[in-house]
Amino acid sequence: MTKPLHLHPDRLFPADPTIRSIARALHASVKDLPIISPHGHTDPRWFAYDEPFANPADLLIVPDHYVFRMLYSQGVKLEDLGIPTKDGSPTASDPRAIWRLLAERYHLFRGTPSRMWLDWVFSDVFGLEVQLEAATADLYYDTIDAALKTPAFRPRALFEQFNIEVIATTEGPLDPLDHHRAIRESGWSGRVVTAYRPDPVIDPEHDGFHRNIEKFGAVSGEDVSTWAGYLRAHQNRRAWFREAGATSTDHGHPSAATANLSRAEAEALYAKVLAGPVTPAEAELFRGQMLTEMARMSIDDGMVLQIHPGVWRNHNAGVMARFGRDKGADIPMATSYVDALKPLLDAFGTDPRLSVILFTLDETSYSRELAPLAGHYPVLRLGPPWWFNDSPEGMRRFREQVTETAGFYNTVGFNDDTRAFLSIPARHDVARRMDCVWLAQLVAEHRIEEDEAFELARALAYDLAKQAYKL
Amino acid sequence: MTKPLHLHPDRLFPADPTIRSIARALHASVKDLPIISPHGHTDPRWFAYDEPFANPADLLIVPDHYVFRMLYSQGVKLEDLGIPTKDGSPTASDPRAIWRLLAERYHLFRGTPSRMWLDWVFSDVFGLEVQLEAATADLYYDTIDAALKTPAFRPRALFEQFNIEVIATTEGPLDPLDHHRAIRESGWSGRVVTAYRPDPVIDPEHDGFHRNIEKFGAVSGEDVSTWAGYLRAHQNRRAWFREAGATSTDHGHPSAATANLSRAEAEALYAKVLAGPVTPAEAELFRGQMLTEMARMSIDDGMVLQIHPGVWRNHNAGVMARFGRDKGADIPMATSYVDALKPLLDAFGTDPRLSVILFTLDETSYSRELAPLAGHYPVLRLGPPWWFNDSPEGMRRFREQVTETAGFYNTVGFNDDTRAFLSIPARHDVARRMDCVWLAQLVAEHRIEEDEAFELARALAYDLAKQAYKL
Amino acid sequence: MTKPLHLHPDRLFPADPTIRSIARALHASVKDLPIISPHGHTDPRWFAYDEPFANPADLLIVPDHYVFRMLYSQGVKLEDLGIPTKDGSPTASDPRAIWRLLAERYHLFRGTPSRMWLDWVFSDVFGLEVQLEAATADLYYDTIDAALKTPAFRPRALFEQFNIEVIATTEGPLDPLDHHRAIRESGWSGRVVTAYRPDPVIDPEHDGFHRNIEKFGAVSGEDVSTWAGYLRAHQNRRAWFREAGATSTDHGHPSAATANLSRAEAEALYAKVLAGPVTPAEAELFRGQMLTEMARMSIDDGMVLQIHPGVWRNHNAGVMARFGRDKGADIPMATSYVDALKPLLDAFGTDPRLSVILFTLDETSYSRELAPLAGHYPVLRLGPPWWFNDSPEGMRRFREQVTETAGFYNTVGFNDDTRAFLSIPARHDVARRMDCVWLAQLVAEHRIEEDEAFELARALAYDLAKQAYKL
Repeated sequence: MTKPLHLHPDRLFPADPTIRSIARALHASVKDLPIISPHGHTDPRWFAYDEPFANPADLLIVPDHYVFRMLYSQGVKLEDLGIPTKDGSPTASDPRAIWRLLAERYHLFRGTPSRMWLDWVFSDVFGLEVQLEAATADLYYDTIDAALKTPAFRPRALFEQFNIEVIATTEGPLDPLDHHRAIRESGWSGRVVTAYRPDPVIDPEHDGFHRNIEKFGAVSGEDVSTWAGYLRAHQNRRAWFREAGATSTDHGHPSAATANLSRAEAEALYAKVLAGPVTPAEAELFRGQMLTEMARMSIDDGMVLQIHPGVWRNHNAGVMARFGRDKGADIPMATSYVDALKPLLDAFGTDPRLSVILFTLDETSYSRELAPLAGHYPVLRLGPPWWFNDSPEGMRRFREQVTETAGFYNTVGFNDDTRAFLSIPARHDVARRMDCVWLAQLVAEHRIEEDEAFELARALAYDLAKQAYKL
Repeated sequence: MTKPLHLHPDRLFPADPTIRSIARALHASVKDLPIISPHGHTDPRWFAYDEPFANPADLLIVPDHYVFRMLYSQGVKLEDLGIPTKDGSPTASDPRAIWRLLAERYHLFRGTPSRMWLDWVFSDVFGLEVQLEAATADLYYDTIDAALKTPAFRPRALFEQFNIEVIATTEGPLDPLDHHRAIRESGWSGRVVTAYRPDPVIDPEHDGFHRNIEKFGAVSGEDVSTWAGYLRAHQNRRAWFREAGATSTDHGHPSAATANLSRAEAEALYAKVLAGPVTPAEAELFRGQMLTEMARMSIDDGMVLQIHPGVWRNHNAGVMARFGRDKGADIPMATSYVDALKPLLDAFGTDPRLSVILFTLDETSYSRELAPLAGHYPVLRLGPPWWFNDSPEGMRRFREQVTETAGFYNTVGFNDDTRAFLSIPARHDVARRMDCVWLAQLVAEHRIEEDEAFELARALAYDLAKQAYKL
Repeated sequence: MTKPLHLHPDRLFPADPTIRSIARALHASVKDLPIISPHGHTDPRWFAYDEPFANPADLLIVPDHYVFRMLYSQGVKLEDLGIPTKDGSPTASDPRAIWRLLAERYHLFRGTPSRMWLDWVFSDVFGLEVQLEAATADLYYDTIDAALKTPAFRPRALFEQFNIEVIATTEGPLDPLDHHRAIRESGWSGRVVTAYRPDPVIDPEHDGFHRNIEKFGAVSGEDVSTWAGYLRAHQNRRAWFREAGATSTDHGHPSAATANLSRAEAEALYAKVLAGPVTPAEAELFRGQMLTEMARMSIDDGMVLQIHPGVWRNHNAGVMARFGRDKGADIPMATSYVDALKPLLDAFGTDPRLSVILFTLDETSYSRELAPLAGHYPVLRLGPPWWFNDSPEGMRRFREQVTETAGFYNTVGFNDDTRAFLSIPARHDVARRMDCVWLAQLVAEHRIEEDEAFELARALAYDLAKQAYKL
């Protein structure tokens, strides 16, 4: 006995009929706006070569750490999910068997955003009409697998079907951006831009940092053995990225620490970093100094600076040893901004040419630090709820805790921040719904007027992202 | 003019008629399930000897730190509430006078869970039909006092009337567990198990630690002057506790710190601890090492490991000096888990034989740390809202902040965690109601299906506690 | 096409008809109660000399850091808003031009409490019937400017119209309190009292601390070169303030740290502070010691002690250099209370003569630290949501997170804490509405009885503030 799969048109809207009806009207006015995706992790190869996706497991399970971390937390081995190992020792390779592991445990996702995104993909993208469970595993597998072999499910066709106006990928400074060039030269009209994510050459504690620095010198043609040359290499790569459409840089540091050393101090620190090894405090200081250098370069080249701090990456030692980085074991930590950002803000906090977008996984900073900072400093804007907080409750808490002090116009709309390409419309839909719910509540409680809510709904769904990211 | 006491059948359900009606249906499906009470502090003597409770004040005020801390905060002296002093100097001894102090100030409890639990006890257990206030103090006292003298109000009769399937008490390693033996040998069918709480022999800063260690050697028959002997003593007592039904251990440390020292380091630290005095850092390190040792033993003997960290115990110096420990002066502190648990998790975080249940009084860790950790590590589960957060709003925040990242199945149902025996059904009722409210909201907003909500309501009320605690 | 300005009578009430109707009834019962304003920053000169306010910009923009910080965050220069510079270099001086900057950007305030307070002032005080926007800027300016020239808009007339029973201002120990004397001697019946805010002579890191100490000696007639004389100077000034009606002291320290040094240690520390410079740790210790000294003096003279900790004042270096203190750049920080308050509480935490009111900008402390502390210690009470949290959502979070552990009677009603005189009734109205909403929800969910809600609504709107501040 299968159960019908049904995306209710009022999903995520409150039960209260007054609020629901306002939310519905607001949502209707924004649901068909094109998608602006200013920050994410899709693979430019997809759009460059437009090849079909391999199979349901490789598309929806293996690359999605939200999905496999939940299965892993309930005792499924990563080996059995086909997650590749570092040493190349084999793991499960039958995608149908992997798919069944998900299907049999799909109840674990009840109440999670993954469930909502996946159901949207199943229903709206693949036209499935029954729920995923053990009994429907094969039906799902066969339906999705067959669809992926058709032209309508190629990356570019989906991009167009999803009504994406522009999407940003994220690349490191060592990336030659060949795929982006291929996209541009292909004559395809889709707009795919890159973003500059220099962590591998900025973080002395990154795997292979010294090897990266060496390559950084090679790709930039600069002498990175000196501080001045190293900075020029960044300028060189930033210019290269801007040619591939980049309008932003992104920085994923363990903390939000910034620094503003004298030139001599910075030179000495860089020399130490190059010589290695450095202490954790020196690594932190170097990353912090580089945020300030990035801000300085942003003033020159106009790139928006994004800071994504506060994560203990790869926390699970066993998983890191066997499977490597980015395997669902990144855990947020308490993160402070007030002291951390002061050096950068003292240097550039009032410069009208600079724009810094702050993210957090520590929601306690919303009302205590981030809204007060963004509600004052002209250079600061608040990024949307990030990662674990990219969820209905996370979005509700964000607006409740941020709006009264920072208003709406110091926020920047939505980021999907995903490598799960098929879920992008679902993610934007969740964000648009939750923003409309918040606005509808404000209208119903006579805290804003209805015409203001319509203007704001559009700003949050479309305008603010475009403006904030200069897209 | 007395006022009627009325436990509304829809209490705690939202006003919204859609959600209320779903919540009602869900609650009706779980309200008569037996009570699983896997963690608490009732006195095994009650069930062993089935003697009547003494009087209303001794039953409901003197042992309940929720009740007397509120009265104390508003100027009532602990002496006047009959709280016994450390030096045995006399305090109030007329239970009726003590009862009147509560009755006259019962308005102080408006909006608190204590009020909800007490009203349930008054109404459902004692059949009182008017509210407690100065004018009804004597009526209350006489009614309750009379009831306590009847067979229906003996501990075992109440246990059966409350529909308790199993209850766990908490004992220290020095406890001979005589009362548990008496229960087993009595032929009574009620299931009362113990839990192993070794803080008095693990925490070098505990009152009388050295005396405790000495007794620990005596009761276990091991030579606790060596690290190896000390560990064997724990193994011995754990086995003893398992025979008395224990399926879990519990650890109430000031922080969640764990450690994983080499054998030589651990031996040296234990020698230092035995020699005493130790620095606060050494005490912290020893407690942390012992959490990891307890995890190691749990892998062998299957006991579930509970961690209840983050409390400044006995914060009020004056109260501690005059009345001793556990007098309502325990205050939570900011508690971090990500760094603290790493040594234990590095050692055993993926071992399928281990199960660790985490608690917190620092709600900021729900969405930031605990849900991400439990949504990844196979050994971790999240305990229910604890202590001050064992309340309607606390339960709501828990589900809102935990579900999206950890799901429902990484949580373990409800703990009443109380020594207030009569309030146990009321506490479970509040938890069941609040979980049904959360589920009803998810259904009303089309975030889960109705049949899923019924399954989840049962899991949260009954199944998950039984499974997680292996009861 | 202008848009009507409309303060809806149900504003801030939830959409749900059951809760709304209870909230309405509760609000109707308290909305006309006189205003008790026990803590704020209005200028006593206004009431002493009753001169007309200058113009709309000087009244509503220039002194209101909530208003100009939002405009500044979106690129408006403080110079253009007429904020005076430290060095006296000229800034914008045309109040109409300043007013237009606000009018053109009024949409930035959507969803903020500033918008709610301002609309109330526009509508209820000035009778404006269209919304503020670029097109109505001059209409607004002219209407308000004309009104300010009439007797009904003089400070005393407004005070009476606003139904203020008593208002407290805040002055430093060096203030001769001439304006308060002028008020008392004027024969006017309005009750305006002062409060003792000694930060400038207590905080060694305060601008001009040494100069302040010197003057402190002069105004008190004490020899402040010794610790004993310095303490006597405080006693002298406190007595002087009590004669001007003060019933409270107030302390705005970077943290909540307290200390309880021996006399010899305190003398030595004071000598160091006087000699200067001191380390940050010594400054912190001195401030902490002075909180304990203030508590000791409160036991003698009955003044209520308010602690407002946890702010990084004047965070923006550029703004501080050009415009000085208090320019909207104060940013909250994580603040802990459990360890910080222990020395003071160990000394005086159970003294029935002492009353300490705690504030926070770190909402994480509500449920974790402040409610548990205030629900235990007889001397502690919780101040209302402060500053950025003086907002509908902030008030909702406060009650949700505090009530279950501290109850209602360990809170102290509302503080408007403002220098924006005209907004005072609007602020109290928001607080009364939000408290009624919380109570209405408790009634609708059968968590308290309706008659209790009416009693509590009055207590929160009026009685508790009067009692807690001894007014």
